[in-house]
Amino acid sequence: MTDSRLPVAVLGATGAVGQTFVRLLAGHPWFRLAEVAASDRSAGKRYADATKWIEGVMPDEVRDLIVTTCDPTQVSATIVFSAMDADAAATVEPAFAMAGRFVLSNTKTFRMTDDVPLVIPEVNASHLALLDAQKAKGWSGGVVTNANCAAIAATMALAPLHERFGLTELFIATMQALSGAGYPGVPSLDILGNVIPYIGGDEEGKIEREMQKMLGTVEGARIAQAPFVVSAHANRVPVEHGHTVVMSAKFRQKPSVSEAIAVIRAWKGEIADLNLPSAPREPLVLAEQPDRPQPRRDVNAGNGMTVTVGRVREDAIFHLKLVAMGHNTIRGAAGSAVLNAEALVATGRLGWTPPGRA
Amino acid sequence: MTDSRLPVAVLGATGAVGQTFVRLLAGHPWFRLAEVAASDRSAGKRYADATKWIEGVMPDEVRDLIVTTCDPTQVSATIVFSAMDADAAATVEPAFAMAGRFVLSNTKTFRMTDDVPLVIPEVNASHLALLDAQKAKGWSGGVVTNANCAAIAATMALAPLHERFGLTELFIATMQALSGAGYPGVPSLDILGNVIPYIGGDEEGKIEREMQKMLGTVEGARIAQAPFVVSAHANRVPVEHGHTVVMSAKFRQKPSVSEAIAVIRAWKGEIADLNLPSAPREPLVLAEQPDRPQPRRDVNAGNGMTVTVGRVREDAIFHLKLVAMGHNTIRGAAGSAVLNAEALVATGRLGWTPPGRA
Amino acid sequence: MTDSRLPVAVLGATGAVGQTFVRLLAGHPWFRLAEVAASDRSAGKRYADATKWIEGVMPDEVRDLIVTTCDPTQVSATIVFSAMDADAAATVEPAFAMAGRFVLSNTKTFRMTDDVPLVIPEVNASHLALLDAQKAKGWSGGVVTNANCAAIAATMALAPLHERFGLTELFIATMQALSGAGYPGVPSLDILGNVIPYIGGDEEGKIEREMQKMLGTVEGARIAQAPFVVSAHANRVPVEHGHTVVMSAKFRQKPSVSEAIAVIRAWKGEIADLNLPSAPREPLVLAEQPDRPQPRRDVNAGNGMTVTVGRVREDAIFHLKLVAMGHNTIRGAAGSAVLNAEALVATGRLGWTPPGRA
Amino acid sequence: MTDSRLPVAVLGATGAVGQTFVRLLAGHPWFRLAEVAASDRSAGKRYADATKWIEGVMPDEVRDLIVTTCDPTQVSATIVFSAMDADAAATVEPAFAMAGRFVLSNTKTFRMTDDVPLVIPEVNASHLALLDAQKAKGWSGGVVTNANCAAIAATMALAPLHERFGLTELFIATMQALSGAGYPGVPSLDILGNVIPYIGGDEEGKIEREMQKMLGTVEGARIAQAPFVVSAHANRVPVEHGHTVVMSAKFRQKPSVSEAIAVIRAWKGEIADLNLPSAPREPLVLAEQPDRPQPRRDVNAGNGMTVTVGRVREDAIFHLKLVAMGHNTIRGAAGSAVLNAEALVATGRLGWTPPGRA
Repeated sequence: MTDSRLPVAVLGATGAVGQTFVRLLAGHPWFRLAEVAASDRSAGKRYADATKWIEGVMPDEVRDLIVTTCDPTQVSATIVFSAMDADAAATVEPAFAMAGRFVLSNTKTFRMTDDVPLVIPEVNASHLALLDAQKAKGWSGGVVTNANCAAIAATMALAPLHERFGLTELFIATMQALSGAGYPGVPSLDILGNVIPYIGGDEEGKIEREMQKMLGTVEGARIAQAPFVVSAHANRVPVEHGHTVVMSAKFRQKPSVSEAIAVIRAWKGEIADLNLPSAPREPLVLAEQPDRPQPRRDVNAGNGMTVTVGRVREDAIFHLKLVAMGHNTIRGAAGSAVLNAEALVATGRLGWTPPGRA
Repeated sequence: MTDSRLPVAVLGATGAVGQTFVRLLAGHPWFRLAEVAASDRSAGKRYADATKWIEGVMPDEVRDLIVTTCDPTQVSATIVFSAMDADAAATVEPAFAMAGRFVLSNTKTFRMTDDVPLVIPEVNASHLALLDAQKAKGWSGGVVTNANCAAIAATMALAPLHERFGLTELFIATMQALSGAGYPGVPSLDILGNVIPYIGGDEEGKIEREMQKMLGTVEGARIAQAPFVVSAHANRVPVEHGHTVVMSAKFRQKPSVSEAIAVIRAWKGEIADLNLPSAPREPLVLAEQPDRPQPRRDVNAGNGMTVTVGRVREDAIFHLKLVAMGHNTIRGAAGSAVLNAEALVATGRLGWTPPGRA
Repeated sequence: MTDSRLPVAVLGATGAVGQTFVRLLAGHPWFRLAEVAASDRSAGKRYADATKWIEGVMPDEVRDLIVTTCDPTQVSATIVFSAMDADAAATVEPAFAMAGRFVLSNTKTFRMTDDVPLVIPEVNASHLALLDAQKAKGWSGGVVTNANCAAIAATMALAPLHERFGLTELFIATMQALSGAGYPGVPSLDILGNVIPYIGGDEEGKIEREMQKMLGTVEGARIAQAPFVVSAHANRVPVEHGHTVVMSAKFRQKPSVSEAIAVIRAWKGEIADLNLPSAPREPLVLAEQPDRPQPRRDVNAGNGMTVTVGRVREDAIFHLKLVAMGHNTIRGAAGSAVLNAEALVATGRLGWTPPGRA
Repeated sequence: MTDSRLPVAVLGATGAVGQTFVRLLAGHPWFRLAEVAASDRSAGKRYADATKWIEGVMPDEVRDLIVTTCDPTQVSATIVFSAMDADAAATVEPAFAMAGRFVLSNTKTFRMTDDVPLVIPEVNASHLALLDAQKAKGWSGGVVTNANCAAIAATMALAPLHERFGLTELFIATMQALSGAGYPGVPSLDILGNVIPYIGGDEEGKIEREMQKMLGTVEGARIAQAPFVVSAHANRVPVEHGHTVVMSAKFRQKPSVSEAIAVIRAWKGEIADLNLPSAPREPLVLAEQPDRPQPRRDVNAGNGMTVTVGRVREDAIFHLKLVAMGHNTIRGAAGSAVLNAEALVATGRLGWTPPGRA
């Protein structure tokens, strides 16, 4: 039986995020993981030999793939998922785009670049229109990025409220999981029974800026940042997966708590009609219990693609307080990139129709 | 050799906070723990038999004390530390005050009562003046309370800034330790590798109100709440001791970061001259490293009585962001009550002079 | 469409093990969870109202069931899963057996009773023959128990070795997960960053005796204990699910390490041909990496029904050292009971043929 | 005021064990930490700049020391504590010994070398006699090692029993703390909520052999290993400090449980009369509660130098089961090395008398 799925590649496939791509692509109904690329040190080895697998068991279909270098002449797939280091991505991702490939990148390098969309499909699939603007650089392919993992959870929770009431000011304090720091990441002696009220690499700045871009609007060849201000406090906590964010939000038009709840419940997002394989049945779920969401208990909602919201209540200074929690390596990283790729396909940008779709 | 220390009692001595009182009073230079009182169920037993000791090893001097009931006819000490349940305290604490005893209470019952001071000695020892107003109730003794553990850490960190720049608005998100919930408290299955973004008993409301009272001013027989607004987000994290709070603060007069740091560094508090035995050499310490304070690493600063502050920086919406962390069962509970008792003694309210003081 | 599945009941359905039964029975292909029974305090309430659900999300199909009392006159199912307290089980389980029901019990009460089988189907399904002996008590139904969770993991790992080489002496040290203690179970202040080298209720004795019974042989109306001696050290560790056991084993005939590995790899167990829905594809898996099995990484192998074995190596005193790890609330409790029920059905003891079987 | 203490040095001072040496030597009554040496990469820097301090706050007196290389021409102290890597120690430690220095080494390199004593002073201070044999190599100084951290806790607990009843066979399963792996050591993603039933570097072999040597006897220029056999199972658990070991022990002469308890309680060890500053008042403490020792609760007994024993009971196969727990970086590493140095001084090997001793 021939496999009619589209061959895809993962760049940076041996690292923590790369492994998450591999897990999510194993058994994907549209995509077949055909190529894995990594640093020169790993190139030429079997994937199973080059990789210290972190979570669960390595999928059989990837064990014997030979790792190639991250070079468009060595990788033939049209859809390329990138989990590269930020420095390496600076030259490699454009090279792939120039070579006609679509790079779905989890790397921060181009997130804030004017003509590069920063996409959560349910929130701003419309930003994919920027791919047309990228042609001006001579790219026959393109680069699509996804945001910082904490920014994604917060943005999904606020998207329906922003759309309806117009966010103006936001305080956000995060309690971020260990897997957000990669592997080996945080030493256990630093975090066991502890909290670290600091995350390097300007995590707070990333959250503040990326939320404004994702909720912004396409203006020609760039995104106009949404006109709200964000103040972020980023913290690391001893949790395996799942970033929890607590927020106080102010809007142009003050919503009541019940209006806010109704808007969150009703929200389906921009891609509800596309029926994408990685899209959860509900992108947002509102927890009923007063002490939810909790990372260990809610992180796998919607196979890690659903963001759970809770504790919507009045705020003493702004309008609303609420809590959101999402899986940082799935919805907050690799899963969102895969969903972005599915959106590209479903909106016809590749000129390829997946098996079983008209 | 006679023991010239003042005999004191602990009410609710068998519970988690009661045990912390017992630990802090063992070997105290001024006070001798002479009486332990608890519920009827424990009364009549040896303390060692009535108590499931939680932390470290029970001090020898308390093992053979016979537990009495929480009744002023059964307890003879003038200074009485209360770790009672809120309901029981409602009648017992006034009965002791009526009987001429000074109750240093960690219980929430009377914290917001008009003529009851809510005291961190370094911050508002002056509020002890309300004890005079309590005479109007026929109390020949009095009740002094200390605040919620998270409110104490935040208030200490902000006290120097408020005094100088006038706090007007405050966002605070807490990451609170397990010992704040008492024993048995939080089931391990609820919190291992998890975060609970909710603490019952209106924890957030307590933080919001108690900070306003502690930073308020004495107006006759009551405290005028300080005129700032607080929005609190309370979270439980898998940490043994030490509440971490992240804050965004706005002031009447905007401080620069360096001004704020200088003010925090210079602050000594109201009781610096009293030389109290439980007062730390520095009530506030400013951490130098960007990733501090951390509960596991800084919680025992000043024997648990120092609050560590860090990450003072500009805020995108208000004026300043900062982090504070303090030991919740010592500075945030029993230690503050002991310090309150020492302040009562040192300011002459008991008419008793401790050994070695002029 | 009519539901042709067999209606079953859970006794003690609101507790931690009861909830695991409910999760495993939701969507079961043969059984339909039709009745939930619990203490008088819960009886009459909706299951969703009577239960503090601990893990994940309560299955929809059980939310509106009305809780009944644990009484055969109130419960009509033929197959009854018991997660009752040991005391209550002492009278209730026989009453159900007398009334013609088959009780699959996770409770310790009758585990060591002569004519009650203590079953892991892959290991000793043949012990179900004791159900015939139970007729002598006037029971038209019967009671089948499953063992202590740590004993199950160890017994599965050793079963192939015992069968071939004859176990004579066994040292076993366990590192047991929190969920083995139920809910609320172990207070977080007792176990965060800690180890407790003790588990109450004679855990060590249970492990020692139950292993001997499970690997024993049917002799008429009772089981002759297997003739080996066990020395168990039981410890609690801060792990959510998954009991890890390290063992040193001596046999009548000394196996080489490679012989032991081959025997473990080849083992399929007694029910391989029955094709039971809850039976994992492989009851035992041998981990390849030197640092496995690990509870967090391997606990869900085979949907929690596979025991993972590793580190088979020479022992300096006995013959072999090895490590085994299994899910304590699935394979070690509710999952084994469900598998026992499936074995009863598949071997014709109920005279009922499941949907889709000849 | 002149400081009459003996200047000492730490080799490998920037690493995790090196830092523990620094902490223990800060304020030591006999020794003044005068020199810190480390790799070439750190040499020439201030200690405070060269070191990422892990635990608590760096002592002031060491901050401004300039790091030198690990070379006897660069280091002038007579007493030198070594926390070097095993490879580097192979040449450096003999060079120091040749140069007349006494090296107290925590490194494994020479532990099993014939003429090198492996010492816990309370257990086998008599083995220091091997220093005389080292003269034959032309060493005017010498090398004294301390054992693997888990071996130390087990050996101390068994020493009184071995001395009296003659240990013949021992099963030991360890649950070892994270700090035993150094820093950064174990990645948090590997151990949060997990157990790793494996510790690299032949941890089990080290435990097995080193116990035999420590409980052996001096025979001329070497130690005759004690004639018992050990089977060790080493496990890593999410605990900060404190290795817990569970043991089953067989003796030449079977002790009753009460005899064993009496022997443990009565034991004072070989150096009780020397009154060494780092020696705890009681080297062994027998916990009374059935669920102790526990690492988080007992690890700091005797400032980390006391080993706590518990659960002495009958064993089904051998004679006794028991549990022991000790601080792995203090008693199990740096603290034991400091105590060894104190024993050298107090037994006159340096020809130097500490301040305040006759």
